[in-house]
Amino acid sequence: MKRDTLRYRLLEAQLELARRQERAVVLLLTGHAATHKGQLVNALNRWLENRHTEVHALAPSSEEQSRPYWWRYWRRVPERGRIGIFIHGWHGDALFARAERRLAAGAFEDRLSQIRQFEAELAAEGVVLLKLWMEIGRHAQRDRLQALAADPATAWQVGPVEWQRHVQHAAIQSLGRRLREATEAPHAPWQRLALREPDAQLPRVAEGLLAAIGEPRPAPPPPAEVAPLAAVPRLHQAAPREVEPLAKPRYRERLAAAQARLAINAREAARRRLPVVIVFEGLDAAGKGGSIHRLTAALDARQYRVHRIAAPSDEEALRPWAWRFWRRLPADGRLAIFDRSWYGRVLVERVEGLASEAAWRRAYGEIRHFEERLLAHGGVLIKLFLAISRDEQLRRFEDRAATPHKRHKLTAEDWRNREHWDDYHQAIDAMFAATHRPGAEWTLVAGDDKRRARLAVLEVVNERLEARLAAAD
Amino acid sequence: MKRDTLRYRLLEAQLELARRQERAVVLLLTGHAATHKGQLVNALNRWLENRHTEVHALAPSSEEQSRPYWWRYWRRVPERGRIGIFIHGWHGDALFARAERRLAAGAFEDRLSQIRQFEAELAAEGVVLLKLWMEIGRHAQRDRLQALAADPATAWQVGPVEWQRHVQHAAIQSLGRRLREATEAPHAPWQRLALREPDAQLPRVAEGLLAAIGEPRPAPPPPAEVAPLAAVPRLHQAAPREVEPLAKPRYRERLAAAQARLAINAREAARRRLPVVIVFEGLDAAGKGGSIHRLTAALDARQYRVHRIAAPSDEEALRPWAWRFWRRLPADGRLAIFDRSWYGRVLVERVEGLASEAAWRRAYGEIRHFEERLLAHGGVLIKLFLAISRDEQLRRFEDRAATPHKRHKLTAEDWRNREHWDDYHQAIDAMFAATHRPGAEWTLVAGDDKRRARLAVLEVVNERLEARLAAAD
Repeated sequence: MKRDTLRYRLLEAQLELARRQERAVVLLLTGHAATHKGQLVNALNRWLENRHTEVHALAPSSEEQSRPYWWRYWRRVPERGRIGIFIHGWHGDALFARAERRLAAGAFEDRLSQIRQFEAELAAEGVVLLKLWMEIGRHAQRDRLQALAADPATAWQVGPVEWQRHVQHAAIQSLGRRLREATEAPHAPWQRLALREPDAQLPRVAEGLLAAIGEPRPAPPPPAEVAPLAAVPRLHQAAPREVEPLAKPRYRERLAAAQARLAINAREAARRRLPVVIVFEGLDAAGKGGSIHRLTAALDARQYRVHRIAAPSDEEALRPWAWRFWRRLPADGRLAIFDRSWYGRVLVERVEGLASEAAWRRAYGEIRHFEERLLAHGGVLIKLFLAISRDEQLRRFEDRAATPHKRHKLTAEDWRNREHWDDYHQAIDAMFAATHRPGAEWTLVAGDDKRRARLAVLEVVNERLEARLAAAD
Repeated sequence: MKRDTLRYRLLEAQLELARRQERAVVLLLTGHAATHKGQLVNALNRWLENRHTEVHALAPSSEEQSRPYWWRYWRRVPERGRIGIFIHGWHGDALFARAERRLAAGAFEDRLSQIRQFEAELAAEGVVLLKLWMEIGRHAQRDRLQALAADPATAWQVGPVEWQRHVQHAAIQSLGRRLREATEAPHAPWQRLALREPDAQLPRVAEGLLAAIGEPRPAPPPPAEVAPLAAVPRLHQAAPREVEPLAKPRYRERLAAAQARLAINAREAARRRLPVVIVFEGLDAAGKGGSIHRLTAALDARQYRVHRIAAPSDEEALRPWAWRFWRRLPADGRLAIFDRSWYGRVLVERVEGLASEAAWRRAYGEIRHFEERLLAHGGVLIKLFLAISRDEQLRRFEDRAATPHKRHKLTAEDWRNREHWDDYHQAIDAMFAATHRPGAEWTLVAGDDKRRARLAVLEVVNERLEARLAAAD
């Protein structure tokens, strides 16, 4: 294709991308030092409409360092309609961390697996990925570094890091091979570029980008399934049993004791800078709000935040579905309480048909990955499911309808969800089976007896925090 | 009011606030150490619905430190419908910075003036403010600190900072008086609370909050007017003059030279960690896009970002109007280019009646404050207005309509804006008069001759950067 034609076609394709807002594009460049990466990006940027483009070359901020590693990239996933260009990005992080022995061999392989998962998740949500590996021979690299260093206009481009990467040329070459081999995929292909002047490389990159924007990509394979753990909860286990009612004075006493214990545990978690995530899911009117209130009553308001998850905002709707949960992950030492959560993907979105079957099926794996990232960062994850019987739910709905100050809690949606009781039942048990994982266990709380349910919630949170605090000693 | 009635009314008012999404509430607590601030917030939080509340006790992150001071608070302005509680916040910052001599006396007064402006801007946009000053005598404070330090359960609350604030009790008392006196306003009143147990203070705070949520507040006074500078641009000055056309080879040569100069200037600005903001405003089809492209062609893609300002997202629409510009301010060393900007408030929003007259009139002052914050942080601000004649605009519209690959640039809105030519003319001149300020000067660029206009834009940016870089030496 003629250079001008190519340039014009690429721009047209980008404007169409921006107009349609159906897909985002992520272009990542990594590889050897002194391969003109910066200049190539600049040359490409001169061909693109910069109003729809963003370029990221990262030095992680303190906000990024105090959250799971992948947060820094999730927050930069471009909106649909936009092109995000990453210099080095997650591939460079893995490559250089391993070359400099900051990652052990096993941890490097784990990271490669996370990269595969991240890229598959983006691709499945309409993000088009293209990855460039910038190649240069050892001798040519040395000559080029020397030439750059000798010219006062370019000497600033050559520092100790560049020389170190030159010394490690062989290691980077072989790690790069492993990196590409482990993360090559039809939905996230690598393209290798040998050192040439950026202007000469540009057409190849532009062609790759044009093809990536224009042509449909194969769907990534869904996340691997995992065998359920032995003792997965099942919803029917929450069936109400005949137990003696808990008298109010006794309830208050036990509540106060549990809250006092929680206050100490939460403070200790903050002192040790553990991030804590507590997820509340449950049937409508099962008492999530009341339980959350009993929980937060014991906490320091500076430490926690309650996230009520409803419909996504328009900024959220323009990104992969998990983006809005990533953005709410707490910093180290903070506690985030989710009143409904990412599990909406496999509950309401499944039952109401808001997500396709393929989308909610792959969400089980995506959720496992999301939670694994939090756990790997040292986070504590506590997942609670509040269940009530069908009869008790009806009683509570009727009570809400009859009581003026409770009426706002009851919506048409609640009645509609009730119609789908069996569908929800099925979705909930499937969710338990797929996402009850080590460190991310579900606790099923029988909610017909409100007092006992609230105490049970506090008990679980206390136990989980204490177990974690004891283990961290 | 009975305690339970009060609690219930407050909750009702909060739920109504959340339902209507017409206003946000900001509650700030500051004052002496050992006054139960944390416990009071916790007690209040137990009365509120935490799903609509957020509490902020700040230690600025690296992202915050590398932007103008107020960025950290603007980003935390709650959405309409929500309550944001700030412990110390901007008042505590001013108070303790002055007590510890990190702010000189004059700088403290400047900060007070900024606080007045910030609070007036929030109030004018529907944020209800309430400020609590927590009072304690010097002896009582000492006793209380000693008691807290002696109890292992509370000893963690007392550190060197608290003792230092005890030593500075008299200074804090007198600075607090000045702070309250300087920032007291009907739209942002102070309430003083003497030390009592949080449970005893709670009803007063709840009553204050209830009144603040429920009753209409007086509108804050508009920002002070300023006398226009002597040499304010006027739109008619951009009338086309008969000049010799600039031949293409000569244009290319001059363009390349200006871009090379810009590349050096921008790199030096990055090296010195200066944040740079370049604003492009102009008549439709005046050539903003083309000028931006000639500018970015000279820049390192890692350094800059182009922000195209269109309609606010729903997250933005729930905050004061300036929020969406604050969130786009560049970090130190970065360059942000605005393709249209906050000036839409006094241009399109004024002419199209999207903002009330009171709103666009006060925007002149709000814009001056916004830009002053950037300048005070050491930023460089370059504002360009691209003008074309009415005949030239018509020619360009017709050309766009006739050329397939330019057609997307022409919308019905462009034709409608053209109908309002005189209204825009008036709005533009009023904008120049009110916002052409020292360090924030407008440059009017005559755009009928595209080549000369692009060179003029580059020339202005180069000159302004060079002046700033020379001054910073």
